[in-house]
Amino acid sequence: MVESIWGKKMSQEKSTRLIPAEKLFSFVENVLAAVGVPREDASIVADCLLTANLSGIDTHGVVRLAHYVRRLQNGTIKTKPQLKFERVAPSLGIMDGDDGLGHVVMYNACTHAMELAEESGSGAVVVKNSSHFGMTGFYIMRIVSEGYAGMAMTATDAFLIPFGGRKPFFGTNPIAFGFPTDGIPVILDMATTSIPYGKIALAKTEGKPIPPDWGFDEEGNPTTDPNRIAGLHPIAGPKGSGLAMIIDIFSSVLSGMPWGPHINKMYTELDKPRKLGHFVWVLDIKRFMPLEEFKRRLGEMLRELNAMPPADGFDFVYYPGQIEGKRREKRRQEGIPIDPGLYQELEELGKRLNVPFPG
Amino acid sequence: MVESIWGKKMSQEKSTRLIPAEKLFSFVENVLAAVGVPREDASIVADCLLTANLSGIDTHGVVRLAHYVRRLQNGTIKTKPQLKFERVAPSLGIMDGDDGLGHVVMYNACTHAMELAEESGSGAVVVKNSSHFGMTGFYIMRIVSEGYAGMAMTATDAFLIPFGGRKPFFGTNPIAFGFPTDGIPVILDMATTSIPYGKIALAKTEGKPIPPDWGFDEEGNPTTDPNRIAGLHPIAGPKGSGLAMIIDIFSSVLSGMPWGPHINKMYTELDKPRKLGHFVWVLDIKRFMPLEEFKRRLGEMLRELNAMPPADGFDFVYYPGQIEGKRREKRRQEGIPIDPGLYQELEELGKRLNVPFPG
Repeated sequence: MVESIWGKKMSQEKSTRLIPAEKLFSFVENVLAAVGVPREDASIVADCLLTANLSGIDTHGVVRLAHYVRRLQNGTIKTKPQLKFERVAPSLGIMDGDDGLGHVVMYNACTHAMELAEESGSGAVVVKNSSHFGMTGFYIMRIVSEGYAGMAMTATDAFLIPFGGRKPFFGTNPIAFGFPTDGIPVILDMATTSIPYGKIALAKTEGKPIPPDWGFDEEGNPTTDPNRIAGLHPIAGPKGSGLAMIIDIFSSVLSGMPWGPHINKMYTELDKPRKLGHFVWVLDIKRFMPLEEFKRRLGEMLRELNAMPPADGFDFVYYPGQIEGKRREKRRQEGIPIDPGLYQELEELGKRLNVPFPG
Repeated sequence: MVESIWGKKMSQEKSTRLIPAEKLFSFVENVLAAVGVPREDASIVADCLLTANLSGIDTHGVVRLAHYVRRLQNGTIKTKPQLKFERVAPSLGIMDGDDGLGHVVMYNACTHAMELAEESGSGAVVVKNSSHFGMTGFYIMRIVSEGYAGMAMTATDAFLIPFGGRKPFFGTNPIAFGFPTDGIPVILDMATTSIPYGKIALAKTEGKPIPPDWGFDEEGNPTTDPNRIAGLHPIAGPKGSGLAMIIDIFSSVLSGMPWGPHINKMYTELDKPRKLGHFVWVLDIKRFMPLEEFKRRLGEMLRELNAMPPADGFDFVYYPGQIEGKRREKRRQEGIPIDPGLYQELEELGKRLNVPFPG
């Protein structure tokens, strides 16, 4: 079942069905409402998951829904958390998520960060007692849509092997940055591990070996067996390793949450709340120059980049977030590809909760 | 002469001399004072260069001094700039460097960012009309020594080939993060290009080929000839490419400065001011938790990381900045290694300005 969360693999298959995003949105909302999540909060989660699916980041889309429901039903994620925000300085705050859905917690943390930024020019919010919040770029997309620049990050459970080490210590710890434009916004959303887990899941399914430099087995040795992989190497050796650590310090050390190997495992330690920490920072661009001038200047840079001659094997030089933006256009028209395994999972989930799946 | 700035290469040679850091510090101060830089500003530059040398980052140490003098003497860096700081929001400011030495400009920008942080919890300063500021980590070391967390970055002239492109567009654009500890601080200071230029300089000197995946020649094709390299690839493909862009947006687009290919070349366009932009952000940790508690928690994480079993080929799992911290201890005792080429350059520079080189 762990593999089934990686929807990418089978999305090319002929039996994959295309389902309109709005229908999936309502399905997510209704499923979450059926297990007791307030409608307003359910909409936030649906928005986050469908934004990921529309962007082509299917690993962070509706494929995660059954897992969230499982934790909502066993109480390790609270359906009706009491969020508490404390402003600790003119530009700083702490958001206590009370073990709610990470999407709802982080969404509200971002609202406060933007309010701080509107008042003080910038706002940084440390988030504690949260859980998996989906795609990091979702929060940055919202921040840039309001005309701000932003940075967001989260700790995740250990899977990244620090540079020089034998075993995982940090999570895949993603970080995202973004800036508003007049078109598709600039959104850089990156994990600090070098190989997406989906590639390993695919090798497992196909029974193929993986290159020995992707990660280590339980004993801390290179392996070509995708079933024996226990952790992945960071991007760029000591740089990605260091970046994963910086993200864990902002997210976990500064928030009072567990870090690295002490973080509850999303899929295997289902009996305890996640106790995740996140961090978000919002910058009010218009204090430095009129927003229109900033967008004009950035637009010029983007046009110059797009006009560069591509290298052999490439058609075009894209900027971060541009491919995802184009894909959103396409999938809004065509629908979201749902592979048979995920289709069945969602259909069963719907049946169990009396919410018809829009197949 | 361009090669001579990469002091690393020859530092292993037997003819390399060890010179006490304090003596080099005074030499840098006196040389800069001799060309009209106020003593206080000269000390800042000396501190930055010697901190790099002590840390083992010799590419950003005294090897750069002759270049700064050249620009100070031809007027493209002003000896006595009129720095202007404007607070544009409770937590934000703009520092206009008036084409002064980047070290002095950024140092003062950091002072203001820390003042903003003390008052508002965080402070972000956009820097314009600046020049090369040396090692990015230097500014972060100062910020963490005052008990803050920080992030600093700068644009540099084009040398990084964006993912999918044929030609350089962004600079090596470094970014640094840091946190205070009770011992050696956590300092991650990384360029977004994957290969240090020093490795290419070394291959040139030794007449050896380089791997074809390091960069492209003028025509945008892979080359194994170190003399034909026109640009380097980013770390981690689209991730490092995107990060270089984010850094250029914060540093150049937001500051009103030229970006990417429009940035004046440090070593080849000597007739114009650099017009560099930087960005610095300071976070007041004690608003979130007592500083001692933060240091205790972070110290625990660092001890856990250091205690991890190392991978084959490694002796120890270090945290970012730890090796540099240990090297500072060592070099404070033993002195800074100066290779014969650099020794001669500095000696001649001293003679020309009537400042004896402490050989």
